[in-house]
Amino acid sequence: MTEIPFVTNNLWVLIAAMMVFIMHLGFATLEAGLVQQKNTVNILFKNVMILCIGLLTYYAVGFNLMYPGSDYTGGFLGFSGFGLTLPEGVAGLQDYADGKYSYYTDFIFQAMFAATCASIVSGAVAERIKLMPFLLFVTLFVMICYPVTGMWKWGGGWLNTLGFVDFAGSTLVHSVGGWGALAAIILLGARKGKYTEKGVRPIPGHNMPLATIGAFLLWFGWFGFNGGSVLSADPGAVSLVFVTTCLGAAAGALTTFVVSYLKFKSLDHSMVLNGLLGGLVGITAGADGFTPGSAIIVGAIAGAIIPFSVVFFDKLKLDDPVGATSVHLACGVWGTLAVGIFGTGKLIPQLIGVVAIGAFTFIFAYVVLLIIKKTVGLRVSEEMEIKGLDLTEHEMSAYQNIERGNYALMVSE
Amino acid sequence: MTEIPFVTNNLWVLIAAMMVFIMHLGFATLEAGLVQQKNTVNILFKNVMILCIGLLTYYAVGFNLMYPGSDYTGGFLGFSGFGLTLPEGVAGLQDYADGKYSYYTDFIFQAMFAATCASIVSGAVAERIKLMPFLLFVTLFVMICYPVTGMWKWGGGWLNTLGFVDFAGSTLVHSVGGWGALAAIILLGARKGKYTEKGVRPIPGHNMPLATIGAFLLWFGWFGFNGGSVLSADPGAVSLVFVTTCLGAAAGALTTFVVSYLKFKSLDHSMVLNGLLGGLVGITAGADGFTPGSAIIVGAIAGAIIPFSVVFFDKLKLDDPVGATSVHLACGVWGTLAVGIFGTGKLIPQLIGVVAIGAFTFIFAYVVLLIIKKTVGLRVSEEMEIKGLDLTEHEMSAYQNIERGNYALMVSE
Amino acid sequence: MTEIPFVTNNLWVLIAAMMVFIMHLGFATLEAGLVQQKNTVNILFKNVMILCIGLLTYYAVGFNLMYPGSDYTGGFLGFSGFGLTLPEGVAGLQDYADGKYSYYTDFIFQAMFAATCASIVSGAVAERIKLMPFLLFVTLFVMICYPVTGMWKWGGGWLNTLGFVDFAGSTLVHSVGGWGALAAIILLGARKGKYTEKGVRPIPGHNMPLATIGAFLLWFGWFGFNGGSVLSADPGAVSLVFVTTCLGAAAGALTTFVVSYLKFKSLDHSMVLNGLLGGLVGITAGADGFTPGSAIIVGAIAGAIIPFSVVFFDKLKLDDPVGATSVHLACGVWGTLAVGIFGTGKLIPQLIGVVAIGAFTFIFAYVVLLIIKKTVGLRVSEEMEIKGLDLTEHEMSAYQNIERGNYALMVSE
Repeated sequence: MTEIPFVTNNLWVLIAAMMVFIMHLGFATLEAGLVQQKNTVNILFKNVMILCIGLLTYYAVGFNLMYPGSDYTGGFLGFSGFGLTLPEGVAGLQDYADGKYSYYTDFIFQAMFAATCASIVSGAVAERIKLMPFLLFVTLFVMICYPVTGMWKWGGGWLNTLGFVDFAGSTLVHSVGGWGALAAIILLGARKGKYTEKGVRPIPGHNMPLATIGAFLLWFGWFGFNGGSVLSADPGAVSLVFVTTCLGAAAGALTTFVVSYLKFKSLDHSMVLNGLLGGLVGITAGADGFTPGSAIIVGAIAGAIIPFSVVFFDKLKLDDPVGATSVHLACGVWGTLAVGIFGTGKLIPQLIGVVAIGAFTFIFAYVVLLIIKKTVGLRVSEEMEIKGLDLTEHEMSAYQNIERGNYALMVSE
Repeated sequence: MTEIPFVTNNLWVLIAAMMVFIMHLGFATLEAGLVQQKNTVNILFKNVMILCIGLLTYYAVGFNLMYPGSDYTGGFLGFSGFGLTLPEGVAGLQDYADGKYSYYTDFIFQAMFAATCASIVSGAVAERIKLMPFLLFVTLFVMICYPVTGMWKWGGGWLNTLGFVDFAGSTLVHSVGGWGALAAIILLGARKGKYTEKGVRPIPGHNMPLATIGAFLLWFGWFGFNGGSVLSADPGAVSLVFVTTCLGAAAGALTTFVVSYLKFKSLDHSMVLNGLLGGLVGITAGADGFTPGSAIIVGAIAGAIIPFSVVFFDKLKLDDPVGATSVHLACGVWGTLAVGIFGTGKLIPQLIGVVAIGAFTFIFAYVVLLIIKKTVGLRVSEEMEIKGLDLTEHEMSAYQNIERGNYALMVSE
Repeated sequence: MTEIPFVTNNLWVLIAAMMVFIMHLGFATLEAGLVQQKNTVNILFKNVMILCIGLLTYYAVGFNLMYPGSDYTGGFLGFSGFGLTLPEGVAGLQDYADGKYSYYTDFIFQAMFAATCASIVSGAVAERIKLMPFLLFVTLFVMICYPVTGMWKWGGGWLNTLGFVDFAGSTLVHSVGGWGALAAIILLGARKGKYTEKGVRPIPGHNMPLATIGAFLLWFGWFGFNGGSVLSADPGAVSLVFVTTCLGAAAGALTTFVVSYLKFKSLDHSMVLNGLLGGLVGITAGADGFTPGSAIIVGAIAGAIIPFSVVFFDKLKLDDPVGATSVHLACGVWGTLAVGIFGTGKLIPQLIGVVAIGAFTFIFAYVVLLIIKKTVGLRVSEEMEIKGLDLTEHEMSAYQNIERGNYALMVSE
């Protein structure tokens, strides 16, 4: 085929960046829908701040940790200086990335990815974490932890040298968020009343339309997340990625539907939404390499994992209000291994990648959160938890369900 | 003009596929907003499953029924085998469609269309249909009915040979959904309490912001639905389609506003949303051929049809909670005929197409649904209908409107 | 660099038009979330109608006022005839704009901008303006006022000759909307009960998830608003615009967060959303010219302005339910001046532009609204305001919060 013009490649990666941006609204609405009404403003506030902090720290530090330049090939850690400055030897915006996209395009696409892993954590720790300590953790997590492990593969580091494959980030983004979430919920403990002597008491989300909007917007954004990770507008590659991504998501939702119907005799809508998302996470590591048929199998298995994983974490009394550990950690690990099974045929590098990145991320998150816990504290008081974080942290309610007319009457007395 | 590069055409069709995807969230939120609160989870659940089933069955069967290849030109039925396999004689992904887009691009764009016609049905049958039989019907409808009539025109079948014109599917997608909806609501009967001795009792939707989100997202997706149907990035053609589509929608909303104000002395928001959608459905068959001025006329007439059509169906006691038959069937027929009036000047092929596809679809849907009705049953019990499908099918509520703090107190007792 | 193909430029501007379209849903949901529940349908209805009226009037008149052709260079007013007709000397759709995009592409992109300035007004006047007079005002504002001042710069008029710079419309779109809003809230007066003897009584918005969806969708659309204003797919320019836009928004949200925490000791979610939007408005005038570092400073100052501006307007008893004057007027002015400080270094033309456009717009809006006020009236009755506009203008409620099952029981009695 003739070479794809620079401008076309660049345009597609920019559009993909826009699409990944909208995933942040997807996370915000999904998580808001799946928590209790009294903690809705809090989770929305966190999701806005995560994105903003993520973009600014990735500009200042993260991008330069994750892509320190070719000198660091094979390495564990590198840094190319603060802020956005064109790499040495690059004459202009367009003399970059083998002429596939501009330096700023590269930055904005990667920056949109960076904040997603912190958004994953925010759902799992919802309804009981203190706001300011959480934002402190998120800042360090996005600024340091995510770019360091990201460099190991995408920045040309040692996992890349080893042959580890993770196309769009089942491990580098999703399981990183999942490991951070796991460390946090271990240190935080479960919400009051979740695990009782009589067993697990489900605490249902307060707004299913909102959660559904979230799941659909995440899928929508995933066209950019996976499709943009081709890093070019190559017609065959991008169209294959669209097909595998969608078939994986569809198969995930369908098997979760069937498995949870057989297992629980119920048609739980939020479970099916998580199945859909599990399918997306599962397909992400190999979306460019699976056949459509394999994509259906990989997504279907991811969807089947979800109900079992949810039960598993509940058995360990690890309370995750939105199921983020099941969706992003369990299915992220599965998807990464699936590349070794259905794609490259090499399982060992995949296992090494999963374990190395998991260990680093979990330890980083655990240590940072432990220090925060021992100093400023991590968890809100029991009173705040009962009253809800909207009133106690924000002095607001998510909804003003005031009878028609009465409120105006009241204020005009 | 110089030829448009393969990669640019392909990129636009892929982006259009993303946009059609988001129409499924549009349908989900529109329909959820227009039903009663007690059936919200149920309609969201159905819309998620329709999309997933639609994608998987279109992969397995539908795409191959709808585009059986050039041998079937002039025919009524063809099939090119299960799953996605490159057509014979096509060397690679890119040696396809005269070099306009890849095989996978073609599939994913068409697959996103397929599920939309089933989404149209789901709104009309809301609040009283059994979930599992509905999903069975949808599977057959998307897998067989939609691709067969679709082939008659877009697959190069007999209607194409005849000169029938339907640019992006006023008939092939929208009225097909509408005919399926009509068959279903005839067999299902009206919701309890809709038609009383004193006349029609309106059952208002439970969430107008949600319905508004739905209408806007459908319009948003329509840029891809109509714009992508150019099947190339041709600047003149795609930009004309954008203009006619938007002017048609705007004119539709405006005339519905005026007509329903004159007719009912009311400013009914959900009626205006349906007017907007009616304008979009009306413009779809000829969006590539109308002048901007004609587009305004076609959209305006579609918008004027909506209030009369809603009253008409209510007179026949055909209960359609979201107005899908008015929007997609009535305006779909109008838009297809409008091509003969304002576009090609040939009304006869348009009439034949409307009648042939209408007859096939209605009979197919009616027979399948009748068999389901006589065997496993189609309608929920009166008790389930009164309690609502969220509680009885899903054991969930869409909203947990629990007073701040109380719920946590309750579970921590 | 090699020239960018016509088809690629055109495609990007079309995609940008789609993105600006979705800003209208952003405005609709943001404003709906920030008003009281009893006025929700009304604000949604207005936002739908504004878009439709805006598109139709821009087709009929506005586009031809704003881009009257090269003869009017240096002028104050021009008109190139009603409707869409290819300019003289332009052979076809593609022989236009130096071969960068088609005539219809130009129209649809500009048309999507036009309605946004009226959407800005709708938020500020919410909860107390009469529907029909408001729509009359909006029609005149979009049809005449916006295109006339727009021509002064973008149509090649006298401000363009003067060296005034406003890349994507901090002044031409946002402050124009803001000045219109200011004139309207002066003439309308405050909502009942907002300003009491004891001071300002906050009237909180009724739905924070909805407002959050709005803010995110506006940011999402801003990729097209600013990115499309490059008017080509130039990789360096568009990617720089993406970076400055996102960093400006992020910095705006962050400083609003910090400043309002220090100033009010609160973590007000709706304030932070407005900070984010203020950052976006502030960056808009110079998004193509700022460095990433300057973009952060410009956005940060915009975010810092928001809490002070909100307090300032409240001190003047100018009641703006959604903060539109702070976001679009105050930050619009700031962003335009910032171009003179951080960009071109020429502050005088920026000041002249701000003052001239402000004066024209404010006077136009004030006079039109005053005539409406003195004739058909502008403000609803006190009874309507107390009952809410949903019931009194639309005979609808935004939500049907009926207990599960009861409604169906009621209607089936």
